Formats: sequence, C-alpha cells, structure tokens
Amino acid sequence: MESPGQPEDVVSSARLETFADGVFAIAITLLVLEIRIPEPGQNVARAIVDQWPSFLAYVTSFVTIGTMWANHHRIFTVIRGTTYGFLFVNVLLLMPIAFLPYPTAVVARHWFEGKDQVVPAMLLYGGTMALIAVFFSVVWLYAASRGLVPAEAVRSRAVRRRGELIYRLAPLIYLLGAGASVIDPILSLIVFLGLAIYWAFPVRPREA
Amino acid sequence: MESPGQPEDVVSSARLETFADGVFAIAITLLVLEIRIPEPGQNVARAIVDQWPSFLAYVTSFVTIGTMWANHHRIFTVIRGTTYGFLFVNVLLLMPIAFLPYPTAVVARHWFEGKDQVVPAMLLYGGTMALIAVFFSVVWLYAASRGLVPAEAVRSRAVRRRGELIYRLAPLIYLLGAGASVIDPILSLIVFLGLAIYWAFPVRPREA
Amino acid sequence: MESPGQPEDVVSSARLETFADGVFAIAITLLVLEIRIPEPGQNVARAIVDQWPSFLAYVTSFVTIGTMWANHHRIFTVIRGTTYGFLFVNVLLLMPIAFLPYPTAVVARHWFEGKDQVVPAMLLYGGTMALIAVFFSVVWLYAASRGLVPAEAVRSRAVRRRGELIYRLAPLIYLLGAGASVIDPILSLIVFLGLAIYWAFPVRPREA
Amino acid sequence: MESPGQPEDVVSSARLETFADGVFAIAITLLVLEIRIPEPGQNVARAIVDQWPSFLAYVTSFVTIGTMWANHHRIFTVIRGTTYGFLFVNVLLLMPIAFLPYPTAVVARHWFEGKDQVVPAMLLYGGTMALIAVFFSVVWLYAASRGLVPAEAVRSRAVRRRGELIYRLAPLIYLLGAGASVIDPILSLIVFLGLAIYWAFPVRPREA
Repeated sequence: MESPGQPEDVVSSARLETFADGVFAIAITLLVLEIRIPEPGQNVARAIVDQWPSFLAYVTSFVTIGTMWANHHRIFTVIRGTTYGFLFVNVLLLMPIAFLPYPTAVVARHWFEGKDQVVPAMLLYGGTMALIAVFFSVVWLYAASRGLVPAEAVRSRAVRRRGELIYRLAPLIYLLGAGASVIDPILSLIVFLGLAIYWAFPVRPREA
Repeated sequence: MESPGQPEDVVSSARLETFADGVFAIAITLLVLEIRIPEPGQNVARAIVDQWPSFLAYVTSFVTIGTMWANHHRIFTVIRGTTYGFLFVNVLLLMPIAFLPYPTAVVARHWFEGKDQVVPAMLLYGGTMALIAVFFSVVWLYAASRGLVPAEAVRSRAVRRRGELIYRLAPLIYLLGAGASVIDPILSLIVFLGLAIYWAFPVRPREA
Repeated sequence: MESPGQPEDVVSSARLETFADGVFAIAITLLVLEIRIPEPGQNVARAIVDQWPSFLAYVTSFVTIGTMWANHHRIFTVIRGTTYGFLFVNVLLLMPIAFLPYPTAVVARHWFEGKDQVVPAMLLYGGTMALIAVFFSVVWLYAASRGLVPAEAVRSRAVRRRGELIYRLAPLIYLLGAGASVIDPILSLIVFLGLAIYWAFPVRPREA
Repeated sequence: MESPGQPEDVVSSARLETFADGVFAIAITLLVLEIRIPEPGQNVARAIVDQWPSFLAYVTSFVTIGTMWANHHRIFTVIRGTTYGFLFVNVLLLMPIAFLPYPTAVVARHWFEGKDQVVPAMLLYGGTMALIAVFFSVVWLYAASRGLVPAEAVRSRAVRRRGELIYRLAPLIYLLGAGASVIDPILSLIVFLGLAIYWAFPVRPREA
C-alpha cells in the first residue's frame, strides 16, 4: 500500500461529480413518486389535505438532499482530483442518499398510526440521515488524508469547525431528533429540516 | 453579511447547471410513469382513447418543464457564476418542478369526476406552476442583486420586460387558469399550455 | 423574424446535450420498471419464461433509444451551437422518446390477448416510433435551415442519403411494421428491432 | 470496412461518458423503488426487519453498479476517444446494468419461498451479472482492437491481468455463485458482493 499523503494516480474528478450529481438529482426527483395519488373514489381536496405529512416529509427530504448536494459541490471546489479508491468512498456516501426515498415514504405512510409505528419509522429515517452525515465525514477525512485537499483548506478554521464539530455531532442530533417522535413525530421533522437549513448557511471564518 | 453587490466567493456554475439539468430531465421523463397502463381485462383501444386527459396533461407538463429548462438555460448564458447561497435558491426552484408529476397525475385521474373534484385538483396543478413562476423570479432577482448578472443584462430592455411584466403576472394567470376549470378543465390546460408556448418565444428588444 | 441562414444568437450546445443525454438515459433506464415482478404465489421460473414478450419489448425499446441517442450524438458532432428556438425543437424530439416506456408496457402486457388488443397496442408503439423519426428529421432540417450545420455537412452525400431516404421512409416503415401485428406481433418487433440495428450502421460515403 | 487498428472517425468520448454516467446513476438510484413500503396494517418495525433480504440485495446491487461505474470510469481514463460503433458497444453494456433492478427485486421478493423459487431467481440475478462481466470484456477488447486505447495500456501487465484472468473467469464465478443458492441464497449474495468488493481494489503492477 502507498503511505498516506503519498497519493496514488490522481485523475480529474469531473466524472465523479457528474455521477454524484446524477444520483443526487435522481434521488431528489424520485421523492415525488412516493406521494400517493388520491384514488377515484376519494374526495380530492380532503385526500390532499390529509396527506400533509407526505408533503412535509417531501420538503424535509428534498431540502436535505439539496443541502447535501450543495455541500458536496462545495467540498469539491477545494478537492483537486480523485483516486480510484476515492470513487468508492463517494459511492458509499451516495448509498444512503439514494435510499432516502424509502424511509421518507415509510414515515409518511404510517404517520397517523400511533407511537409504536411512528417511532421505528422515524428511527429508520433519522438513522439514514445519521449515516449520510457519517459518510460525509468519511469523504472529507479520506480526501484530507490522501492529499486530495490542499493543506490550507484542511487547516482553514471554517472548514475545521464544520468538519470537526458539526459533522461529529450530526449523527447524534439526527438520532435524538428521531427519538423525539416519542412525543410528536412533527418534532423529528422540525429537527431534520432545521439541521438542513442550518447547513445551508456556510460557516465563515471569524478569526478575531 | 456581505453588502448586496459585493458578491461572496463566486465559483463556476457548471455543476449547478448539471444538477439542474438532471432534475429537469428526470422530472420531465418521470411524467410518463403516471399514465396508467390498461389492465388485462380492459379494451386497449378504448382505454387509450379514454385516457386523453392523461395525454393532454402529459403534453402540458412536458412542454412546461421543457420551457422552464430552456429559460433556465437562457438565464445562465448571462449568469457569470454561482455563490453558495445561489445554489439553494436554485434548489428551491427545482422543488416545485420535481413535484409537477404529482399534480399532473391528480388532474389526469380525476378529470371525469365532476367540478368538486376537478377544481381542487386543477388548483393544485396551477398552484404548483404559479410557485415555479414565483421562484423563477426569485432566482433572477437574487442573481441580479448579488452581482451574478452583468449590469447590462439587468438593464437590457428585453430581459427587463420579461422579468417585470410576465414573471409578475404569471402566478396570477396560472391561478386564474386553474379557476377556469369551474367552466371546463380543458380551459385550464389551454391556459397552461398557451403560457408555456408563449414563453417559448423569446422577447426581442424592439427599440423603436 | 430573422431570415433563414441569418442565425440569431448561437450559444454552445453543451447544456442542450447534457439535458438530452439525461432524458435519453432516464427513458432507457425506466424501461425496466415496466417489467412485472412475479407475485409471491407465482412460479418464478415459469412467470419469467412467460414474460418473454416483456423482455423482447424491453430489448427493442432499449436498442431503439440507444440508437436514437447515438444518432443524436452523431448529429451534434457537426452542429456548431444552438439558438433559443433550437432548444424547443429538441424538447419536441425528446417528448416521444420519454414517452416510449408507456407503449412498450402496453404491448408487453396485452401480447397474449388476441389481435383486437395487440394491433392497437402495436399501432401506439409503432406510431410513437414514427413520431420520433419525424421529429428527428425536423431537428436536422431546422439545424440545416438556420445555419447551425456547416454547409459541407449538409451537402455531404452520406448525410444527405440518410437525411432524405431513410428518415423520410422510416415513419412509413414503422407504421407498416405495426400493421404486421395483424399476422403476428413478433413481426412488428422484428421490424422495429431491425430498423434500430440498421441505423446502428452509419452510412459511409461511396463516391464511386 | 476499415482494417482493425485503422480507426474510423474518432471523436471525444465526453458525451458517451455523460450518457453512461446517467444510466449508471439512474439504475443505482432506481434500486430503492423495489423495496416494499410496509402497508398500513403491518407492524412497521417487524416488516422492516423481515425485509432484510431486500436490503442485502439492495446493498449487493448498489455496490456492484458502483464498482462497474468506477471501472468504466477507470477504463475511460486511458481511452482516447470514441467511434460511432463504440457507442453501440457501450449501449450493449448498459443494457444488463439498467436491467439489474429487476432481478434484484425478483430475488428479494421470493427469498423465503423455498429452493425451487429461489434458485431460478438467483440464476436470473447471477446471469445478469455474468452478462455485465462479458460485455465489460467486449468493451475493452473492442476499444483495444480499434486502437482506441494506447498500445502501452494494452500491454500493461496490470490491465492485462485484469483483462484476461478476472474478466474471463467472472461470468463463471457469477453462475457458480448463483448455483450456490441450492445450499443457501445468502451464499450467492456473499459471492456477488465479494466479487464487487474484490473489484474495488485495483490491480497494481508487481513486476518482480
């Protein structure tokens, strides 16, 4: 094996970004397929209103995947290329992202069924998001350890803060948020949506 | 915060365009999944003919998303890059676009059921389109206010006319069009399709 | 209006190609969703064998879309850019291509039901393919008339032969092929598949 | 016909890579649609746990497609362009890849039904993977024989070893792995997943 920091063949990350953009774009667009279309017998207006958990879960997953994509984009503005191994680390990250439509649908469909149904559904949802957060850290740490990120970027306070503080706590926050469904499932979605919106604001270096 | 016009880090919009193209392409292609396949028992020819509202809604949504994509493409020929925040503004725009297969299916499936079913379905459809129009203006105004568009382009009569007149009235026209389903749902689709076709013709500067 | 040959603003066709590639790629991949998964009660081996029309239709549509994509790719190696209007002409072409999973599924699902069911299904399928062929000619003729293709390429014997002979006859061949399902639906698929494979071989100039 | 090594018109492979990336990205993301969402009546936690074969098949197919994509990416770092014919060879390769969600779903849905159901399902799955492996060799051999790969790359020991040994044995290993479902279907997935992970490690030249 090569020693860390001694990167093996580094090629352009253009195609990795195209593939990742594809998976992000498809996962975010497939979310709509899980919203149930009112059946011929049903009252359309009422059926749509009663589906508000589906819409809320849709927005939560959409904003989450959108934020993940924007952050992936942002990380790759400092990444200077990819190795063969780094491709797989990204495939790992894309797995829970592509999986997100499933827990989104499970939560939406069992929303009104009582805690013993909602809590496991929400744990599946929050667990998937926690996994995404973990693999995001892995992507960054792998890139940093293999010399795919310039040393300045690694040192940069802004990046460090995000990399160390938020990314480490995020999985825990997601699981706690999922657990909050014991009180009310809406609390979980507020935590998930809030975290996505929080991440939409980039950390700025404040050197003072 | 940085003052408006003092753009923060501006990076290439290449990947934003790839991601947006992906969402547009997927949403436009997913539309077909909502057209029901005649069941083994049914008469194929009759079932297909009876599904004409599905096909009309398909064409309307297809042409609308196609026009939206072409206009997004057109706006980005003058946009000189993206900030981190601008990525999110675009994610917001993509949300109702990716959502469009849902109201398209709702309208198609309840077409023959009477006004109390068709009108709310059409309001959902027109409302989604109104939202797309609103977010399109937001994308443009955000880009203009953050200096992502050259001042000449902002001043340009052609762009101004489109930006101010059509985009401001569009949400209203979509809602009025949806309301026209009180008379006949076909009127709504004519308004929606007409608006998409109208937008397909670029505004040319006529200085005289 | 501008006079033909006096092209309006010509911009890079890069994003048009990305969008078109996306629609081609999604339509070709969505085909698999229409193949029915044997239900828990059914004998798996027998259910799969009995689904051979689904697989044959899958291969036919897959090869057709693949060939369409390759020819689109090939046309764009000589196209030097796009106007705003040319974007819409391409959206028109993409509409029947994105629609193809629907007739593919209709044909597969009603294959064993007798002529009065199979023939209209096959006409829908062949009609969609005829439409694709027509719009392909429109794309080429529009590009040629607006000066988006260098004059040499338009004059080129190879391109001319393909443009005039095959593309003009293709819609007719597709409809005749669909009509052949009166004898046996397998004949239709042989015609469709044969045409796709024929198109896979580029016309070479033979000046002698 | 042109003689081998005398390549016909070679154009940039950029668009071929975009299209292939699209198909890989869509196929990998569609896998999630085949995982069944627990119905309102069912116990959510139990239904999810009982679906472990679905999740295992999901991971196996996801890692397999991810590895295929990474290897496609890797091959194209040495490929210097594409001919018209090479586009079709790639379309052939993409066909079983885009098909993979189907056997994945068949295996997952019939996992608990006894050998006479599981073995044919697994043969379909392994057979699809064997076909992918065969077409991967075809892509490489076609590129090499048409001069699309520099002679050094063809000669390179690393590439040769992979090209000759693994790719030739792979179809056999996949079929043997599928046959192992006679003992236990989990053995098949271990073989498939193991092969995907094995391929994730690039062959390094060891000249000694």
